[in-house]
Amino acid sequence: MLPVAVDAMGGDKAPAEIVAGAVAVAAEGIPVVLVGRPDVLAGFDTGGLEIVPASEVIEMDEDPGKGVRRKKDSSLVRAAELVRDGKASAMVSAGNTGATMASALLRMGRLPGVNRPAIATIIPVPDSRPTILLDSGANAECTGPMLVQFAQMGATFFASRFPELGAPKIGLLSIGEEPGKGDPLRKETYALLEQAVLAPGTFIGNVEGRDLMSNEVDVIVTDGFTGNVALKSLEGALRFLSGAVLGALMAPELKEPAKQVLPALLPVAEALDPDTVGGALLLGLKGVCIISHGSSSARAIVNAVKVARDMVDGDLVAHVAAAIGSS
Amino acid sequence: MLPVAVDAMGGDKAPAEIVAGAVAVAAEGIPVVLVGRPDVLAGFDTGGLEIVPASEVIEMDEDPGKGVRRKKDSSLVRAAELVRDGKASAMVSAGNTGATMASALLRMGRLPGVNRPAIATIIPVPDSRPTILLDSGANAECTGPMLVQFAQMGATFFASRFPELGAPKIGLLSIGEEPGKGDPLRKETYALLEQAVLAPGTFIGNVEGRDLMSNEVDVIVTDGFTGNVALKSLEGALRFLSGAVLGALMAPELKEPAKQVLPALLPVAEALDPDTVGGALLLGLKGVCIISHGSSSARAIVNAVKVARDMVDGDLVAHVAAAIGSS
Repeated sequence: MLPVAVDAMGGDKAPAEIVAGAVAVAAEGIPVVLVGRPDVLAGFDTGGLEIVPASEVIEMDEDPGKGVRRKKDSSLVRAAELVRDGKASAMVSAGNTGATMASALLRMGRLPGVNRPAIATIIPVPDSRPTILLDSGANAECTGPMLVQFAQMGATFFASRFPELGAPKIGLLSIGEEPGKGDPLRKETYALLEQAVLAPGTFIGNVEGRDLMSNEVDVIVTDGFTGNVALKSLEGALRFLSGAVLGALMAPELKEPAKQVLPALLPVAEALDPDTVGGALLLGLKGVCIISHGSSSARAIVNAVKVARDMVDGDLVAHVAAAIGSS
Repeated sequence: MLPVAVDAMGGDKAPAEIVAGAVAVAAEGIPVVLVGRPDVLAGFDTGGLEIVPASEVIEMDEDPGKGVRRKKDSSLVRAAELVRDGKASAMVSAGNTGATMASALLRMGRLPGVNRPAIATIIPVPDSRPTILLDSGANAECTGPMLVQFAQMGATFFASRFPELGAPKIGLLSIGEEPGKGDPLRKETYALLEQAVLAPGTFIGNVEGRDLMSNEVDVIVTDGFTGNVALKSLEGALRFLSGAVLGALMAPELKEPAKQVLPALLPVAEALDPDTVGGALLLGLKGVCIISHGSSSARAIVNAVKVARDMVDGDLVAHVAAAIGSS
């Protein structure tokens, strides 16, 4: 396969952790190229990986639109161009999320018929089926037909990512399970989803915020404003409670029993760690683009590159194109 | 003080737990009347509390509007009438949320100048300042001026509920901290909040979903659709992780160490338990109305009645009227 282009300059821990992750995953036999400033990368052990030079970096807090327009030789823009030009099979970045979206959208372009690309985030649910939430932040304003496309793209992604789990159940995020619940956008979308071509999934109706970690639904569809708020509310709650539990167990008088119970809690913590998931997918483009968490470690990059490889191998882009084209 | 009217028939555990809670809190010296079907309540130990008869019950899954219109002798409608008629100081119900709102709105009425009442939910944050989220579900569709009133009412509620914590910091729930982030409603509201009369609080700008359990903000303002999704996402995540932690600790080989660490985790669990908070407040009406969780236990009712008593004692309604009237 063509190599996966990894933006070596993007992320809170770039380039050290990004480079380390790229080197580690390449050692497992997945071809990778690093994109970034050769002068900076010279200071790191890049393990003989090819470095595609890019002289600029779009900073984490930079305005995405301006960054992409002005910094044409940035690592993000160059990574997207490698995919566009058939020199890389996918791109991975833990950098500025908005700039990653803009680079991928402007350089790769949308698939025919796709109204707007959407960010699909995998919510891991330990010992249970994961949930895919989209849009989790690309489009603050959405229409009903956009949400229908998100359902089609999300179901296709779920089937590609978790083929062993069978056809996904698709739900519309609302504030009550009955069809009439929600605002006008939800009411319109509910009616559209009932008539939509949804291969390979099935629309099960409205779901609620508590279903993000339930087993009732696999693909949850919403606008990017609500999706981003829901995802961050969930992440904040998990982080708070993990911290509170660990804090309680750190009490000096609990040293011995804590030593015994902590190993039992580790699998839950690891499953919920964003680094395990590796990143979110930007769906609807003519190429695979993985948006990793800004705080990505080397392990996150390893997992992101593996997801990219799987999505390329499984021909996700063609499947999304077919799902949108057949509707 | 006038008694607090408790809807004895509302809630998943009604009437047993509701009656038990009312009796327990009355024993602490807070006057309470039960509202409900005398024939049903005769089967429970009502501890000599006054029973205001109401022959009908609006069921948990009944259409709120129809329920309130058709069941004029329901416990919910009668409870709201007691407040309206100056026979009770406040009402508490763990019943149908929509019907509780509708009863309170139609019977008590809005305060002058209040565009729409909002549900203010207290999010407990163990070892930290609590956060008030509003609107958490009363109004699926909102305008900028409505959100400004929510900010004014929420800040007033925070100051009444937690006078020891000083003036609350007010944040607008969005998807990025910069002023330009979010959809058109957020952009409009941001500008309005910058100019609004916000006594006694201060507008600190946009906040994100992860701030629901942070110490950065005290009152988070949003529309009822987003607020309900955010709250349920948070509750679902907390429930999931609590269950996973407890499940891991139940392993037979961890019996002894678990016995030692569980007492350290109890305070966190208790602080996060919705029963500890007691209920959400419906703000903007000519009376105090507490909406308790559908699954409320006796303890939840005890705490809800105490919050009601505090809000009556502190003259919350007059303070909300002043906050809205002065803007």
